[in-house]
Amino acid sequence: MRVLLRVAYDGRRYAGWQIQPDHMTVQEAVEDALHDLFPKQEDLNLIGGSRTDAGVHSYGNPVVFDVDTRMAAERIAPALNVRLPEDIRVISSVEVAADFHPHHVESKKTYEYRIMNARVVMPTDGPYFYGVHVPLDVEKMREAAAYLLGEHDFTSFSSVHAQVKSRVRTIYELSVTEDHVDRPGRDLVPGARLQEERRITIRVTGNGFLYNMVRIIAGTLIEVGRGAMTPEAVRDALAGMDRELAGPTAPPEGLFLIGTEFLRVEKPDEKKAEK
Amino acid sequence: MRVLLRVAYDGRRYAGWQIQPDHMTVQEAVEDALHDLFPKQEDLNLIGGSRTDAGVHSYGNPVVFDVDTRMAAERIAPALNVRLPEDIRVISSVEVAADFHPHHVESKKTYEYRIMNARVVMPTDGPYFYGVHVPLDVEKMREAAAYLLGEHDFTSFSSVHAQVKSRVRTIYELSVTEDHVDRPGRDLVPGARLQEERRITIRVTGNGFLYNMVRIIAGTLIEVGRGAMTPEAVRDALAGMDRELAGPTAPPEGLFLIGTEFLRVEKPDEKKAEK
Repeated sequence: MRVLLRVAYDGRRYAGWQIQPDHMTVQEAVEDALHDLFPKQEDLNLIGGSRTDAGVHSYGNPVVFDVDTRMAAERIAPALNVRLPEDIRVISSVEVAADFHPHHVESKKTYEYRIMNARVVMPTDGPYFYGVHVPLDVEKMREAAAYLLGEHDFTSFSSVHAQVKSRVRTIYELSVTEDHVDRPGRDLVPGARLQEERRITIRVTGNGFLYNMVRIIAGTLIEVGRGAMTPEAVRDALAGMDRELAGPTAPPEGLFLIGTEFLRVEKPDEKKAEK
Repeated sequence: MRVLLRVAYDGRRYAGWQIQPDHMTVQEAVEDALHDLFPKQEDLNLIGGSRTDAGVHSYGNPVVFDVDTRMAAERIAPALNVRLPEDIRVISSVEVAADFHPHHVESKKTYEYRIMNARVVMPTDGPYFYGVHVPLDVEKMREAAAYLLGEHDFTSFSSVHAQVKSRVRTIYELSVTEDHVDRPGRDLVPGARLQEERRITIRVTGNGFLYNMVRIIAGTLIEVGRGAMTPEAVRDALAGMDRELAGPTAPPEGLFLIGTEFLRVEKPDEKKAEK
């Protein structure tokens, strides 16, 4: 049967999803756990939905593989978790149609880029936020974000190293939200100068993203937020189709793959289930 | 002058606050940074307000030291931060009276113990929550917590290794709150069985805490939450003054020192400031 896993991870220890020599990757850790659980299965045909970069986090990268087993698909997730390091967790496992392929089915992917906008970032926030120490103008970031909505050629917002036929993608949603951190007790030392702490979240949903695209969008919106670029310059950068026109690539620690919604996932058909 | 620092840290790499041989501690890192900043100052008289345990986190442990310098007290925090590892941050630095001592001034300390109550804990939550996988009854935990409010002998809720004259302490506030984690996109894989995720926070304010006291309170309330102890058994444990009657010591990763409010902090007097 073909099984769809939803794999969450803390990206800090890994050189991204995809297997590569001399570096530990999430894919390698998942494959090792699968081979340990199913020692007779030689070819797993493991396919990850998103090739997340080194250091990027995930709440659920969709991963499919093939296995010949009598184990119920739902039991595979807990069985893998006892074999995986604690910074990788399989959230769910379900059987899907034998020809289901995460790259060939239309899908909506959602990422969040998380910024801690504060003079000093709390050490326990450091691993999962990009710390920006100058105040960001969220209203201006929203104005700029609006230009990126819809179908565009995102050449300016992708790594020059991306090897793809088309750089046209569709962004369905792109929001910039802020919330003030209510740090309990942060004013418990009288006389201490208080700092303002704001979480700023850039949330983007699209039909697919080019190499580094979300991090370049985040890096560009941060330039706008700190006044180094105007919202109109972002519109012009998109139109100019030149990577040099957009802002820098924001660092990986703030990036979370939230999830992937497949617009069509065939369940295994009834006949096959009866076998 | 005597300076009061508020020191935040991610406790994972440290054997707690207090200096000890053969282990890295937060105190040692702060002393190293101070000696680097003030190389002529031989005796710093460094005193930490709370001797947090190995692995415990802090948003602001109050720390005082003495230094002979013309640098403004407020400039010391940023100067230390460039000399400290990223998992320790000095949030603020202010001058206080020369005889101010954090152990000798009446104070209110606030801690939080954070639980992630979910079948599977997201890897990016793992470092800062204690994961409890069976559903906890928060209402019962609140009933039990109510018995601990006020002035009591907390012998049952302190390590047998605590060496103190009196085990009487006052708890001013002890709340158990829950919030459902709104994990964006957690249902983006159709067919995946969803899990409920709840953050449960035990927040306690008191005039001081015995060795392991907050972690034993947390461990005991978790026993109540999962039905292994009744709220009345907690009342009886308190009255029995025997460590064996309370629950286990909950692990350190869920514990945060939120802050310390000194009921009286004399500012340096005017004459001294004119010198």
